Amino acid sequence: MYLMRIGAPGAEKPVVRLDDETYVDVSDVAPDFDETFFGSGGPELLRPVVAERAAAGQVARFAGERIGAPIARPHQILCIGLNYRDHAAETGQPVPAEPILFTKSPNTLVGPDDDVRIPRGSTKPDWEVELGLVIGRRTSYLDAVEEARDAIAGYLVVNDVSERAFQMERGGQWSKGKSAETFNPAGPWLVTPDEVDDVRALDMWLDVNGVRRQTGNTRTMVFDPYVIVHHLSQFMVLEPGDLINTGTPPGVGMGFRPPVWLQPGDVVELGIEGLGSQRQHVLGPR
Amino acid sequence: MYLMRIGAPGAEKPVVRLDDETYVDVSDVAPDFDETFFGSGGPELLRPVVAERAAAGQVARFAGERIGAPIARPHQILCIGLNYRDHAAETGQPVPAEPILFTKSPNTLVGPDDDVRIPRGSTKPDWEVELGLVIGRRTSYLDAVEEARDAIAGYLVVNDVSERAFQMERGGQWSKGKSAETFNPAGPWLVTPDEVDDVRALDMWLDVNGVRRQTGNTRTMVFDPYVIVHHLSQFMVLEPGDLINTGTPPGVGMGFRPPVWLQPGDVVELGIEGLGSQRQHVLGPR
Repeated sequence: MYLMRIGAPGAEKPVVRLDDETYVDVSDVAPDFDETFFGSGGPELLRPVVAERAAAGQVARFAGERIGAPIARPHQILCIGLNYRDHAAETGQPVPAEPILFTKSPNTLVGPDDDVRIPRGSTKPDWEVELGLVIGRRTSYLDAVEEARDAIAGYLVVNDVSERAFQMERGGQWSKGKSAETFNPAGPWLVTPDEVDDVRALDMWLDVNGVRRQTGNTRTMVFDPYVIVHHLSQFMVLEPGDLINTGTPPGVGMGFRPPVWLQPGDVVELGIEGLGSQRQHVLGPR
Repeated sequence: MYLMRIGAPGAEKPVVRLDDETYVDVSDVAPDFDETFFGSGGPELLRPVVAERAAAGQVARFAGERIGAPIARPHQILCIGLNYRDHAAETGQPVPAEPILFTKSPNTLVGPDDDVRIPRGSTKPDWEVELGLVIGRRTSYLDAVEEARDAIAGYLVVNDVSERAFQMERGGQWSKGKSAETFNPAGPWLVTPDEVDDVRALDMWLDVNGVRRQTGNTRTMVFDPYVIVHHLSQFMVLEPGDLINTGTPPGVGMGFRPPVWLQPGDVVELGIEGLGSQRQHVLGPR
């Protein structure tokens, strides 16, 4: 299934995408794709409903609605740093021995095509295409990496927008450079794992103003999604609907010599094989 | 006002404490002390209700109910590191030039007298008495430090429980050592600012098994609560109900030579002048 939320910000309607033109409205059986939904086995309960409605022709056509993030604001957004060997190299840092965890404010979550706003005082705004994953059930102390498969509700594209000066030069911890409003475009879809052939072999890309900046594949991840979920579950309780950004491949702005930073007016496009694509306009500070 | 939530975990009832023996039940007008409550001016709407009910004798007596955290699980828990000059010194780190931000998982929030559980694999569990503050309205880009006064809904005692090996030796960022379940006892009360004479001159203390370990006063903070809120508002949007732990004074376990770590069976007691006190039993890993 391809879960989507469409409509105005704060009033998104949960739907299941059938193809580029059509969807099934599920807002009567799933008020939102949130912690309650994922924590109560929502995706599996939805599956027969969608099949039945599609078979009965209870199908709607997309009509240019805004696309929201495919999940409601989560309990937490966790991020893994330096998780591609070649990205670690471009930032001049060693490949980590275990997953590096940092966090973003959950209210950074926006739709895949919403504007990205450069924060006040920003000098080094940057992009990061990433594979995101959403937790499907309350998860703590997984015994084995393989158990993580059952803890993942689906995958999605995220842009882990970053302000490198805030991240690196304002106190040592990274969250300060990751949490500005609009800094986490997500979607267009949350794709359930059965629709993804091999999450460890997905092409990913990011363009700025039509120029290819990032090219990667999840096979060069240092820690794959299952390792990440297993690892994090040893340190905290993951809640249903939690979002994990699993790291970015090479080609971020700070990796260029000289570095390339986002500017007001830029257009950022990004995508991952099978998970859809995003397109954001970059705005100056408000 | 002294806001409290009493009752079983997950089913706490919001009340306003009048004194050690009595309270006013406000659960009919304020379903919970959460983002909606604080974001809609809840405390000021509650004030006349409480006065009226108290005058009319609509008062209940505490009967040994469990005390929950005085706020519902917040959108985010933000923490300021090394924010007391003497604590920075004991950890061997310089006094920071600006507030150091790190985060805890929001689901670490528990009541003031709930058990604290040492996580699996822990070797260096530690304590931190802290002044917590709760955000009272959506807050972004405050122009002046003084504006932060109006953005604070109240103050409370928190124990910013920490696992130093997870924090310092597992990837460089601190969140991994701050986010285990039960790691953020809070309360017993959220005290509205009008009840606090000077938040920048409050005595604070922490005992382990009856031995005084931390003694401090908020006057030795590097950055006071108003500076912190003003500063954070430049980097992210603070939501109503967000909790900020403002840092700990000297006397944490890692500051002793040799260091002193929490053990199963320990009893931790802590408090802040005018904000009440907490008492936790320490349990081994589950």
